[in-house]
Amino acid sequence: MPTYRAPVKDWLFILHDFLRVEERKQVPGFAELTPDLTSAVLEAAAQFHEEVLHPLNQPGDSQGAQFHDGQVRTPNGFKAAWDAYREAGWHRLSLAEALGGAGLPPVMSVPLSEMRASTGQSFSMYSSFCAPAASMLAALAPEWIKRHVVPRLSDGDWTATMCMTEPQAGTDLRQISTRATCQPDGTWRITGRKIFISGGDHDMADNIVHIVLAKVPDAEGRVPADLSSVHVFMVSKRIIDPHTGDPGELNNVFARSIEHKMGIEGSATCALDFESAVAWRIGETGGRGTAANMAPMFHLMNYARVGTAVSGVGYAEIARQNAADYARERRSGRAGPKLRDPLKVADPIIAHADVRRLLLEARSFAEGARAGAMRAAMWQSIAQSAPDAEERQAAADMLDILTPVMKAFFTDRGFDAAVACQQVLGGHGYIKDYGIEQFVRNARVGQLYEGANGIQATDLVHRKLFSHEGRPWKHFARAISDFIERHSDDVQLKPYTVPLDDGLQRLSKSFAWLNTDGSANYGRVDAASYDVLTAMGILYVGWTWGEIAAIVLDGTRCRYVDETTRATKLALAKAWMQRQMPLLEAMCRRIECGNDSLLSMPDDWI
Amino acid sequence: MPTYRAPVKDWLFILHDFLRVEERKQVPGFAELTPDLTSAVLEAAAQFHEEVLHPLNQPGDSQGAQFHDGQVRTPNGFKAAWDAYREAGWHRLSLAEALGGAGLPPVMSVPLSEMRASTGQSFSMYSSFCAPAASMLAALAPEWIKRHVVPRLSDGDWTATMCMTEPQAGTDLRQISTRATCQPDGTWRITGRKIFISGGDHDMADNIVHIVLAKVPDAEGRVPADLSSVHVFMVSKRIIDPHTGDPGELNNVFARSIEHKMGIEGSATCALDFESAVAWRIGETGGRGTAANMAPMFHLMNYARVGTAVSGVGYAEIARQNAADYARERRSGRAGPKLRDPLKVADPIIAHADVRRLLLEARSFAEGARAGAMRAAMWQSIAQSAPDAEERQAAADMLDILTPVMKAFFTDRGFDAAVACQQVLGGHGYIKDYGIEQFVRNARVGQLYEGANGIQATDLVHRKLFSHEGRPWKHFARAISDFIERHSDDVQLKPYTVPLDDGLQRLSKSFAWLNTDGSANYGRVDAASYDVLTAMGILYVGWTWGEIAAIVLDGTRCRYVDETTRATKLALAKAWMQRQMPLLEAMCRRIECGNDSLLSMPDDWI
Repeated sequence: MPTYRAPVKDWLFILHDFLRVEERKQVPGFAELTPDLTSAVLEAAAQFHEEVLHPLNQPGDSQGAQFHDGQVRTPNGFKAAWDAYREAGWHRLSLAEALGGAGLPPVMSVPLSEMRASTGQSFSMYSSFCAPAASMLAALAPEWIKRHVVPRLSDGDWTATMCMTEPQAGTDLRQISTRATCQPDGTWRITGRKIFISGGDHDMADNIVHIVLAKVPDAEGRVPADLSSVHVFMVSKRIIDPHTGDPGELNNVFARSIEHKMGIEGSATCALDFESAVAWRIGETGGRGTAANMAPMFHLMNYARVGTAVSGVGYAEIARQNAADYARERRSGRAGPKLRDPLKVADPIIAHADVRRLLLEARSFAEGARAGAMRAAMWQSIAQSAPDAEERQAAADMLDILTPVMKAFFTDRGFDAAVACQQVLGGHGYIKDYGIEQFVRNARVGQLYEGANGIQATDLVHRKLFSHEGRPWKHFARAISDFIERHSDDVQLKPYTVPLDDGLQRLSKSFAWLNTDGSANYGRVDAASYDVLTAMGILYVGWTWGEIAAIVLDGTRCRYVDETTRATKLALAKAWMQRQMPLLEAMCRRIECGNDSLLSMPDDWI
Repeated sequence: MPTYRAPVKDWLFILHDFLRVEERKQVPGFAELTPDLTSAVLEAAAQFHEEVLHPLNQPGDSQGAQFHDGQVRTPNGFKAAWDAYREAGWHRLSLAEALGGAGLPPVMSVPLSEMRASTGQSFSMYSSFCAPAASMLAALAPEWIKRHVVPRLSDGDWTATMCMTEPQAGTDLRQISTRATCQPDGTWRITGRKIFISGGDHDMADNIVHIVLAKVPDAEGRVPADLSSVHVFMVSKRIIDPHTGDPGELNNVFARSIEHKMGIEGSATCALDFESAVAWRIGETGGRGTAANMAPMFHLMNYARVGTAVSGVGYAEIARQNAADYARERRSGRAGPKLRDPLKVADPIIAHADVRRLLLEARSFAEGARAGAMRAAMWQSIAQSAPDAEERQAAADMLDILTPVMKAFFTDRGFDAAVACQQVLGGHGYIKDYGIEQFVRNARVGQLYEGANGIQATDLVHRKLFSHEGRPWKHFARAISDFIERHSDDVQLKPYTVPLDDGLQRLSKSFAWLNTDGSANYGRVDAASYDVLTAMGILYVGWTWGEIAAIVLDGTRCRYVDETTRATKLALAKAWMQRQMPLLEAMCRRIECGNDSLLSMPDDWI
């Protein structure tokens, strides 16, 4: 059985030494984030995840969700855990107070997302859309839904799903064939099949609210092949009385099967048939084009991407904890010509340089990415409601870049870290008893769902990084240069700022090359997209480590951690600079080779 | 259900155009490898693996090996398949004719090893030591074993296991605690627990021969903590009458449990208790030190490492085939501003550059590594029995380097390739139905067993590459320079030879740096070991692609493949040069950074 200790000290370090949240009066909600408040919240959440969810994690996946007669039975203990979870309110920490949430800024939900991955991704997938759906419906739904449905989701009495994918239509939503037809009473009827619906049915709550994408035919019954006729609907598992909000008879939504998967087997991934199911449209009436029509879904999708990104950190963290414990206990061979532990038959394997490599790469990723994710959550608060418009725009540019970068890079590296930590155990890592192989199997899904990682790379290069004449990238690069410049006199910091500066200059050169012939260059940009994304991920975490190193080296700025932690942070920062930043050069060479090998082959040769 | 088509054409290309085996009269057994013979053998083997083993692969792992009352039941169909397999003799293709094998050189067994991984690793693990154990026993066992046991293993009537690992002793064999005591009649009694014994019990054959490591106490009953008292024994599941060779009553070998694993669930991984089990010593009597005592086991281990290396190719191959089929069928989005398939709603995803990247990286690895593995098998024949001593030594040096490099690099890249191909399917890749997730789970074990990959790296840097004053590395580097020099006038070949030359020069520089302060430098060499191994793997496959490109570009030397295959080979060679060779620079920078971040941290900070 694996163990888990939530990294509360690290979250407090990030909040109060790295981000200094309580001093940022101009960021909405930050002034109240005193160390007293944040430590109380995070310690309570840690205790819950360690003691309630973690023990269910391995048995839940090994039992798996069961499907009989059109109904899903969740693993033993999930229902009771959910009752306790929603009683404590961990799912609504960042939901507005007006909607029944705790109203804490998103930066406080990042640790929760991380713990959910570490201790119970299968469990949490049933309820992960409660708060986002409540928030989205409160903004965009008809009045009666705001009154009756939002409080139930906020409370966790009901759960929500996001129904987009169909057998023939995944990323390409133009191809969905689910239809919605308007009824004289203003409701709609929805018919079609949706697949890969997490928590599409279960026994943990009394009702499930499905947020569904469907096409609306025109007066002649035709639907265009593009996105223009796609709208968002709410379909409730039980039909709700709009006047009382009471759930009544079952709607025509039928769970047909659940998938058997590589991992997260405790989560029910459902195929749902909608057979003239009663539905309500969500979104501004009179729809002003595709963007407005789809707005409710983008709201949920972006939320899911950030949560998925952080899951990579959660898997790296728990895998590293367990592998490091094993490596301190297990003895094998001698780590060098000098006997380190002469009285014992062998050294602990943590003494071997290559075992240290595996563990440190996992840890320098986990702690760097964690700080990076929380910093991005701060920009989210700024982008949403900082008083200064320019500051809002700058933060929004950062988020535009970082949403796809973190989703893909953090899940890639979270998976790699879990694999590396499994490697520490040798053959024992392959055995289910130790639990670490479960983290590998579970972590894998983060790269595949919520927009497969290749899609994130396409989104980054074609729609984000170089949009608005390259403004987002220029802004990002400028922020790093500013940091380096501010510390140009600090000799102690050179081992961190020099590799960072080299990486930034090198990548800028590649981007300039990539853009030399502008839009004619689509293929090259496309072929380079994944290297661009990976390079951006390495650079972002590198910048984050640079900032952390600066704080640690400046004795006055580091208030919440002891000497050992400070020294550890410097060593982890250095590990990133020594072992990850060199990869930038390779990514840049790949970008600049033009990748004609990828582009020129006929399909049949591939 | 996944599909599989054995790459027979590619094996024939490698044998007859790349290696030109039939012209190498000086290599024992090569003259008879005519295209008629090799194509007949490989086509028959392909048919067997495609039609008999492949259909059992998914159901076998999903049913799994079962354990009841101390006995293992193998998945449905395994016994019948094994009867057909040994009837055809696929397991003894390279076993000497004198021992009942087909006597073909090892290069002909590489395709078999690859197919076993692609279509039935769980199945093949029960019998993978039949031929190696037969060969080892024929050389080193007492006379009656040669007469009675060897033919049964050769025939496949019995199977064999390798029993090394114990709960407290994996890589570090000094720590094994299993004891052997000599009896007056010359037999031995063995007591101890062995774990992770593949095929330690099963119902596919009448008897199982365990090759067991155990320590022999001295006259006072003491055993030293080092390897000096370790010897190799044969323990038969049923006690064999040395006069008749008949198996009689059950020996005191008890299967206690089987492991539940991340993958290869059809293979029974047993914990075996030896309780004063009757045993016979294997090896030269009068033991001349540890190396002689352990020789029988090293014989089996080296065999296992080469087979494991090739499994990486097998997983990359079958995963790529299935992902490419999916990518040609599945339509999603548009691959660029120019409409490629205007009459269809979307382009096939194989048109997207990033999907092509995933598939081509898998394919350029699989085909380059395949050729590399078969070339190494040719050196194996040369090292064993070429007439010229210098040539034997040169080939042995190559193998010394390539055994750990191929074991680790090929299994790493085989796993990565399976993961990349799973990525092509997006969310569908996570679902068991498509079968590709099974390849990922199964491929993972190759990195963990038969010496975890980190151990291969340690072996490479401390005992192989730089041994004999660096002779093996100098020899390796010289062979690449010679190739480049031979083609220095060939302008067409520059896109392949230039990156190869750059990589070789760069790596030589790093190795020189690494060796500047010799043995004092243990920590640095240790910390760099994995980067050294990975760089060597990239370089070796790169060299192999360079040689293939040279053959393809020289019209006269490419006799067995059509124009399309030739063009495909060039594109794959280029993909390796453009996308893998740039990583060498990053590996070298990591090597040269000294890695003080890995070496200097106290254990508790990791």
